[in-house]
Amino acid sequence: MLRIEGRNAVREALNNDVTIERIWASNSSKDKTFNDIISIAKAKKLKIQFVDNIILDKYSKTGKHQGIIAETSGFKYSTIDEILDAANKDAFILILDGIEDPHNLGSIIRVCECFGVDGIVIGKNRACNVNETVIKTSAGATSYVKIAKVTNINDTIKYLKERNVWVYACELGGTDIAKENFDGNVALVIGSEGFGTSALTLKLSDKTVSIPMCGKINSLNASVAAGIAINTIYTKKKGN
Amino acid sequence: MLRIEGRNAVREALNNDVTIERIWASNSSKDKTFNDIISIAKAKKLKIQFVDNIILDKYSKTGKHQGIIAETSGFKYSTIDEILDAANKDAFILILDGIEDPHNLGSIIRVCECFGVDGIVIGKNRACNVNETVIKTSAGATSYVKIAKVTNINDTIKYLKERNVWVYACELGGTDIAKENFDGNVALVIGSEGFGTSALTLKLSDKTVSIPMCGKINSLNASVAAGIAINTIYTKKKGN
Repeated sequence: MLRIEGRNAVREALNNDVTIERIWASNSSKDKTFNDIISIAKAKKLKIQFVDNIILDKYSKTGKHQGIIAETSGFKYSTIDEILDAANKDAFILILDGIEDPHNLGSIIRVCECFGVDGIVIGKNRACNVNETVIKTSAGATSYVKIAKVTNINDTIKYLKERNVWVYACELGGTDIAKENFDGNVALVIGSEGFGTSALTLKLSDKTVSIPMCGKINSLNASVAAGIAINTIYTKKKGN
Repeated sequence: MLRIEGRNAVREALNNDVTIERIWASNSSKDKTFNDIISIAKAKKLKIQFVDNIILDKYSKTGKHQGIIAETSGFKYSTIDEILDAANKDAFILILDGIEDPHNLGSIIRVCECFGVDGIVIGKNRACNVNETVIKTSAGATSYVKIAKVTNINDTIKYLKERNVWVYACELGGTDIAKENFDGNVALVIGSEGFGTSALTLKLSDKTVSIPMCGKINSLNASVAAGIAINTIYTKKKGN
């Protein structure tokens, strides 16, 4: 079972008809935001249990439930083909090569929702799954963005290339990302927090692009780097 | 006393001659990265105490010391004039209107270091100070970026306008940030995680700019939004 915790996350799950088994809600919350969420849940005839906050604290896995927790049967992953089939005319896919921090993953899913990314690919090994912290940090974006969990990132890159998707790796030493066009189907690879993109993945990608910087440290948090790269591609594609 | 914890943060403090009172280092770490940092500290004739990891765990305020902690007398804040005087030809200043999460603040300081922001202004009230978690999350960027702590953000905005700085607020409902030029002296205001930019601050700013989005949630994490906005301005200024 997977718990969706916090107001934004529960509201977005309700809005997008995520299958919810039951809701636990605080019996002491009375504000408008809270009542609005309860109204939506009631309209959907969901089972709602009003409980003391101490019970919610016990059920919460993130420690930040904001008075509401929804229980689902689990996160519904998509397949690569489902992502490609549901994509816009020009598909835009994000491939995460080993993101391990749930806050980074949640924040990246939120970025993808904001900038029309059609789907995210994550690996089965050495990578964070969609858990309670990811859902909470994504502010509900996990209810909207398709995510595929694959055994081998490199096999997926090969398959995407066969399906006419141009694969860019975002890594140091590439060409300026702001100077690319990004027309057609695009996949962007973002490497892990500690080690970046693996050598084989870099080699398989069609091109390496970089975010130019001018500091002494020249290292961004993984979710910020993903945000800048995805926003750049979104802005370019909009202009195409 | 303020503690600088973790390898990146301690190395950048050493590289930038931050005043360090003493260093506690693990007596069981032996790898190259660790030894390199110890060599720099020794060359600077700093007091280094090698201790058991259990002692480091006790001294650590972030819980993530990676075998090394440096103690300083405190974070050295700058004044607005110091930031303006040290700035490049065209100053680029970031104003944070109530960022409360230390991870967001640390991540934003890191962004500023990467994209040549001359200084950051934070408020004294309802805002996160530069503490151990901020330093650790900034990956050492706090050793390079000037930060001014002011009593009143709005007074600072008025003063910056007198000093010929054009103040942009990054908030919903403004003009597309990618369509601005940003030549001359620029200050960018980023609002708090929960409430955005305050009404008076918005009114005092010369112009409101927005990051166009296309999703249903349309809300980014504060550090990601700051990253995208700062990168956009940096890219524009570079092209000017």
